[in-house]
Amino acid sequence: MDWLTNKINLPDQGFYQKALNKQAQLTKPLGSLGLLENIAVRLAALQKTEQPAIEKVWVSVFAADHGIAEESVSAFPQVVTTEMVKNFANESAAINVLSRFVNADFEVIDVGLLAATDISGIIVERAGNGTANFAKQAAMTEEQLRKALTTGKSAVERAKKQQSQLFIGGEMGIANTTSASAIAVALTGLPVAQLTGAGTGLDDAAIQHKAKVIQQSLILHQKFLENPLKVLQYLGGFEIAALLGAYIFSAQQGLPVLIDGFICSVAALLAVKINPETKSWFFYAHRSQEKGHQIVLEQLQANPLLDLNMRLGEGSGAVAAVPLLQMACKLHNEMATFEQAEITTQ
Amino acid sequence: MDWLTNKINLPDQGFYQKALNKQAQLTKPLGSLGLLENIAVRLAALQKTEQPAIEKVWVSVFAADHGIAEESVSAFPQVVTTEMVKNFANESAAINVLSRFVNADFEVIDVGLLAATDISGIIVERAGNGTANFAKQAAMTEEQLRKALTTGKSAVERAKKQQSQLFIGGEMGIANTTSASAIAVALTGLPVAQLTGAGTGLDDAAIQHKAKVIQQSLILHQKFLENPLKVLQYLGGFEIAALLGAYIFSAQQGLPVLIDGFICSVAALLAVKINPETKSWFFYAHRSQEKGHQIVLEQLQANPLLDLNMRLGEGSGAVAAVPLLQMACKLHNEMATFEQAEITTQ
Repeated sequence: MDWLTNKINLPDQGFYQKALNKQAQLTKPLGSLGLLENIAVRLAALQKTEQPAIEKVWVSVFAADHGIAEESVSAFPQVVTTEMVKNFANESAAINVLSRFVNADFEVIDVGLLAATDISGIIVERAGNGTANFAKQAAMTEEQLRKALTTGKSAVERAKKQQSQLFIGGEMGIANTTSASAIAVALTGLPVAQLTGAGTGLDDAAIQHKAKVIQQSLILHQKFLENPLKVLQYLGGFEIAALLGAYIFSAQQGLPVLIDGFICSVAALLAVKINPETKSWFFYAHRSQEKGHQIVLEQLQANPLLDLNMRLGEGSGAVAAVPLLQMACKLHNEMATFEQAEITTQ
Repeated sequence: MDWLTNKINLPDQGFYQKALNKQAQLTKPLGSLGLLENIAVRLAALQKTEQPAIEKVWVSVFAADHGIAEESVSAFPQVVTTEMVKNFANESAAINVLSRFVNADFEVIDVGLLAATDISGIIVERAGNGTANFAKQAAMTEEQLRKALTTGKSAVERAKKQQSQLFIGGEMGIANTTSASAIAVALTGLPVAQLTGAGTGLDDAAIQHKAKVIQQSLILHQKFLENPLKVLQYLGGFEIAALLGAYIFSAQQGLPVLIDGFICSVAALLAVKINPETKSWFFYAHRSQEKGHQIVLEQLQANPLLDLNMRLGEGSGAVAAVPLLQMACKLHNEMATFEQAEITTQ
């Protein structure tokens, strides 16, 4: 897993400055396009260009099952993970509709459903038959972790091969907010209650039960949680490991990443802890309604684009934000300057 | 101006309920698409359809000059209004780039620049050579008000003729935040300081001067500000009157409206005071960085889609939000139901 700490390039300062200067010349009060200006300038620096563009978007949805589902921590039964993968393959889920809308390349990867399936059109790179129940033992072996990380890396290789300009990772896995919350607590040291939410729709009593399961699991494993990769191995999910691998490799390959909601942000936090320069390559799509997301965003010093009370996962919030990135680029490239438009500036 | 209070249809309760029921069957936890669910359901009820759609979008930018600019209330000189109209006509401003991106029909209307121009490709319906300086006299005559309102109505007639499914109004007019702030104070009774902001980029001292100009003007005209139309006549701008006329007529014609930032929201507040049912037809695009917008949004009980620190005007924030409305519709229409996808729900 040594590749995780391989070098990541910083944004190009020359193109950053050029883009900033250009924004000051466009026919609008400086700063009046708000975050859209910031996005265009960052993308120019990352893409090393005066004409940043997000025309080709890549979406990989990683799906896996979670042993912790045994502990009654989700509002939906575990079988739904596989059923939703079929829904993705049939192009009928929210993420499919959104990916079509932005004309993104879309793929689903079975990183470890409970059992192998005969669903056609999906990529199969199984690290196991779901993770083990982390309330009782480590969620995965080191070998399984390595495999799931590599699955994320491979998705980015496919995205790069298609000349994608933006990588979006999504996730599906019943009980995976339990895993993400446990990881977030282990990484931040904050109280479990602050980072544990309703997931797909738990009531208050069920959320308290979920928090208790997480708390006890953290106590069980505490002496093994010595670094981010160990945290992931003991508490994680295969799809979270795949997201982590994808995020870090995407940054290493110079491919900007758009982070979705709570679970993806936890993977992003792992990435930043393991290889801090990943951060330069991350854009944050939205503030999820899932409790805990706000805290994870703060840890990442993230300023997401959307705040629509979404909490679906699948990468849906990220794809919903794609048009904003595209508009930011178009504005930067196509607006006239004050000089071109002969506009008086004083 | 009697037409302003003509009847406006309420959303269809049958289609509203059908759309709500459908949202509960789509393959996602109920509510997990947040505001996007709400948008789809509202549009279904307004368009009286099971398949809401925002394919054809109309953008009318109303431009006019303001006598109050004499009082040094803007960071830009008055000539910029006309220069920007030329920029719009040349398709080189932010609103042009954004309108192209969403494939909207776009037009610019001279509702009363300081002087007639020879700019080609714009619509000319001039209510005057800019408004009068409302620090000294009424901004416009009743006849001018009537004319500017009608200009807004005509824009909606053109939009309807093109089978547009969404009306967006934009505005351009140096010093028009001063007019909008004055109107907002008159309508809400709140302190001037709370509703007066930086506009295109004033510093603190200049904002205080602007607030003082507004305060004194309100004192000058106070006995005439007896209803929303009088407020508009004494303190308004031709483009604000055009927006008001457009918003009300759009609702009367059954054409949903997407409201842009501060100035447009003040026009929306006037509309709601004059004909309360307009409200059912309004969607709010974004929270502008302009001070005062938050208060006006609260008065409208608005929950806007975007919060990107934008403060450009021109309709730019509204057009930036169009893809979200379109995605809301696509999700509603194209996602599989639990039954179709054979997904276990308990």
